[in-house]
Amino acid sequence: MSATWIDKDEDRTIAKWKCSLPADCPVEIVGKPKIVYRGQWTRTVEVHYRKRNSKKEEVSQSIHRKEISPGRAHGVEVIAILHKAGKRYFVFVKEYRIPPAGYCFEFPAGLLEEGETVIDAARRELKEETGYTASKVICLSEERHPMAPQLTDNSISYAIAEINGDSLENQNPKMHLDEAEIIEVVEVECNKALAYVQSISTKVNVDGMVVEIECNKALAYVQSISNKVNVDGMVYAFLLGYNAKF
Amino acid sequence: MSATWIDKDEDRTIAKWKCSLPADCPVEIVGKPKIVYRGQWTRTVEVHYRKRNSKKEEVSQSIHRKEISPGRAHGVEVIAILHKAGKRYFVFVKEYRIPPAGYCFEFPAGLLEEGETVIDAARRELKEETGYTASKVICLSEERHPMAPQLTDNSISYAIAEINGDSLENQNPKMHLDEAEIIEVVEVECNKALAYVQSISTKVNVDGMVVEIECNKALAYVQSISNKVNVDGMVYAFLLGYNAKF
Repeated sequence: MSATWIDKDEDRTIAKWKCSLPADCPVEIVGKPKIVYRGQWTRTVEVHYRKRNSKKEEVSQSIHRKEISPGRAHGVEVIAILHKAGKRYFVFVKEYRIPPAGYCFEFPAGLLEEGETVIDAARRELKEETGYTASKVICLSEERHPMAPQLTDNSISYAIAEINGDSLENQNPKMHLDEAEIIEVVEVECNKALAYVQSISTKVNVDGMVVEIECNKALAYVQSISNKVNVDGMVYAFLLGYNAKF
Repeated sequence: MSATWIDKDEDRTIAKWKCSLPADCPVEIVGKPKIVYRGQWTRTVEVHYRKRNSKKEEVSQSIHRKEISPGRAHGVEVIAILHKAGKRYFVFVKEYRIPPAGYCFEFPAGLLEEGETVIDAARRELKEETGYTASKVICLSEERHPMAPQLTDNSISYAIAEINGDSLENQNPKMHLDEAEIIEVVEVECNKALAYVQSISTKVNVDGMVVEIECNKALAYVQSISNKVNVDGMVYAFLLGYNAKF
């Protein structure tokens, strides 16, 4: 076992199926979840389970990483808006990623460090990956938003960062990359105003299996259930875009 | 080794680091990528690599799944718009997921079957997971959009589906779930019109490490590079939302 991953964390990887199964959990775990691979950065875990009232046993295989800030998301995704010479840009990063064996176009992002707030992590990662110093960082969500929840326990929070591109400190942004990071910054100009024409309808109908909520309240709904339900990162990102006011 | 995963696929899992390294690839693979765990559904792979011009060796650990439709994304995410009694809804699914040990709020989604088009898969998954028959399905992107690319090779395409909720066939939608699936449908009402006020600016500046593009052309830009670069699922989802015209 690697020195970077202590027993306590390993227990936590396994313990969550005992601790966090909700009262209305539709599955029961069969036997004990098993760590089938111990890597320096990740664990591969096999979990046998069955739906309640079913005899058929299923198996889940997934990759997990160390929980550095217990109870919080693993990382933060930063939606960064650069203000420069009267224009606005989204700041993205293009990074070579080993698992898909190719370049990926992503938001600046990174893992939370121990005890670090989402805002502090967003500010630090933005600086490291793009060289920019944010003038303002707002946490959009501190919840754990899963990415690829069928394959990993990986989860992220969202922040939005404003960058003053005309300030002296942001004239020649210099990245501070880890040895392993291979990143290129891509800036995409934003229009200044974005307005939505939204209908104001009122129907809210809760009917057991189906909840109906107004589309212009979708983000608010998703935020309201984020404490109980993990909102898929893509759903959250889509709704952030759909509700964008910047 | 499981019967569901044949040697050829396993070779392909490993071979991609040889076949698909781009000419400007910033890393070189050290030794041979190693399958460290063989599961029924997934492989865990360890890849040692170093940046070109660097002596420091890094290790990547990730989970991979079988490529059912070689060359295409593993799955499809369906942004579904339900038209019912003069109103519009987004259709989401709430699903219990073993890896994060909790409920997740997601788009209807699923794996592509062999030879299946993105549109056919979207139509099939929507029917299975929500019971709805789509009147129209549009493929928004056939590219491979990675999800959690630092941990998996998992990739998805996007489709948008329109559902006529007033038609007879959609009066009592019945899900057709696999034994292992635990899903609840959540419908979120959409407003009818959504308009953006977008600036029409013209600056496009390509400067080696930094590309500047108008914000209202961000989605077009992302689509244009999707053949060469894997666009992160969240970036794509955010831009889909940001550019939504429905």
